[in-house]
Amino acid sequence: MYAITIPEPGGPEALVWAEVPDPVPGEGEVLVEVAASAVNRADLLQRQGFYNPPPGASPYPGLECSGRVVALGPGVSGFSVGDEVCALLSGGGYAEKVAVPVGQLLPVPEGVDLVTAAALPEVTCTVWSNVFMIAHLRPGETLLVHGGASGIGTMAIQLAKAVGARVAVTAGSKEKLQHCAELGADILIDYREQDFVAELREATDGAGADVILDIMGAKYLDRNVKALAVNGRLAVIGLQGGVKGELNLGALLNKRAAVTATSLRGRPLTEKASIVAAVREHVWPLIAGGHVKPVVDRTLPMSEAPAAHRVLEESGNVGKVLLTP
Amino acid sequence: MYAITIPEPGGPEALVWAEVPDPVPGEGEVLVEVAASAVNRADLLQRQGFYNPPPGASPYPGLECSGRVVALGPGVSGFSVGDEVCALLSGGGYAEKVAVPVGQLLPVPEGVDLVTAAALPEVTCTVWSNVFMIAHLRPGETLLVHGGASGIGTMAIQLAKAVGARVAVTAGSKEKLQHCAELGADILIDYREQDFVAELREATDGAGADVILDIMGAKYLDRNVKALAVNGRLAVIGLQGGVKGELNLGALLNKRAAVTATSLRGRPLTEKASIVAAVREHVWPLIAGGHVKPVVDRTLPMSEAPAAHRVLEESGNVGKVLLTP
Repeated sequence: MYAITIPEPGGPEALVWAEVPDPVPGEGEVLVEVAASAVNRADLLQRQGFYNPPPGASPYPGLECSGRVVALGPGVSGFSVGDEVCALLSGGGYAEKVAVPVGQLLPVPEGVDLVTAAALPEVTCTVWSNVFMIAHLRPGETLLVHGGASGIGTMAIQLAKAVGARVAVTAGSKEKLQHCAELGADILIDYREQDFVAELREATDGAGADVILDIMGAKYLDRNVKALAVNGRLAVIGLQGGVKGELNLGALLNKRAAVTATSLRGRPLTEKASIVAAVREHVWPLIAGGHVKPVVDRTLPMSEAPAAHRVLEESGNVGKVLLTP
Repeated sequence: MYAITIPEPGGPEALVWAEVPDPVPGEGEVLVEVAASAVNRADLLQRQGFYNPPPGASPYPGLECSGRVVALGPGVSGFSVGDEVCALLSGGGYAEKVAVPVGQLLPVPEGVDLVTAAALPEVTCTVWSNVFMIAHLRPGETLLVHGGASGIGTMAIQLAKAVGARVAVTAGSKEKLQHCAELGADILIDYREQDFVAELREATDGAGADVILDIMGAKYLDRNVKALAVNGRLAVIGLQGGVKGELNLGALLNKRAAVTATSLRGRPLTEKASIVAAVREHVWPLIAGGHVKPVVDRTLPMSEAPAAHRVLEESGNVGKVLLTP
């Protein structure tokens, strides 16, 4: 088969579409013929040599895909050859085929076409596990989403609105904020021109955010703690603004607040499977019912993966960038 | 009545036993004739002017007491005049009488005398709410307790052992560590001579602590994150080592770990009542069964409150220091 390989870490041009051996599904895995994969920020780090695949994972990038089951490894039940699926991957999505642990497979939701389904696994699993399973966002609470127009952001807005929460977003342009508003965001903050702590405080009568979904890490840590409400929960899922930041534990203590940080990729199979099962139970019906939609910015052929990476590097996207073999 | 007043913030001598008006129980409150109160570190801060009572709280120090119910305010049920109780307070325990919201009252547990019961409310509520309600310590997991010989520490060791966890403690002398061992602590670390990160790593085959109960704040933040296991939870309840510290979010993210910080005193009545109810349900039977014991360092008359404060300032205690009117 063909896959995107990274002969030498580097810029977008480091991504090379090349012939490689076919993957073989192991115990509890299925082989999926890929219809589409999607670009995640972690792929950009992997391309640069900063985020190596965990032990046992495919060496090729790609943390999610959609496609058809073409073979079953030993001990697989619940899925059959020919099934249309999408999947959370530890890597290997930028390829014609990928082997997937069965616990990370999801059926293609009703009303979503096969290619578009590749936009769903990472964002639904990341948002559901952080905002709901860890931070327990409740109806009537306020969620602040940084990067509201990103793939994660567009899904977080919709899921939070679907459960009856109020949603604030930050984004870097009026156009992006307009997209967020169309998805249901209530409080729109242009981070290039506005101070999100002050804007959020004003919009919530001084209360702040009950939950913050953050991708900036160190750069926003102090301001995020300031923006939290009493009993607030800050869920960090990205470190685009650096790794080490000053934490005001006094402020955290006065608010009885929590800071969590997670990634999906490093989780053991059992944890991934339990998140995927929760997403299937709670999120898939919202998609099938038309309450939550995948947001796709554009779809490019895999051979143009370098161009797709440039889009994310320039934050030029609203929603997901897909790649088709 | 008489109470310990603080005419001017300052050293231990700022505590003055003086005549003051009797408190009057309001709606949903009872009046307790105090048999004993106990010294908490927050009292030391209040004495120095760094920790003012929340709005509506008594101006006198004392966050817990035991005693007899001598009057009921309007709308009180579940307790009667003459009942022997202990109570979580927002202040006012260093006095002959104190008014207490009924949700913060507990019966004196079976097998505990009335004075000794004053050693229980703060430590049981703090440990239960943080280690169990927030950090969800589970059987088989490892808890690291900083300051294992303190009032909080001696209760945390016993409760964690009672639910089947493994307990590591830090303390500042061999004698204190010996006391911790007698209460059930498995891993003993002298913080004056040993590096707790390295010692804990060695004792847990590299895994680290699933839960850390911390009183040092900023000074230990980085090392606490290093000492956490995957999926670990750091619960900060004191800031003896400073307020602002560097948080390595990358390490937190790789471990999918959480940092929480709380205090009991600032919580609204409903949250305090739900913690007290959980303690009565889960901790009181362990005390009545003899599995968990109050640990009292010494008992002094209230007029010697300055001496009692000096004991805590010098960390000269193992367990609680009680004060009797």
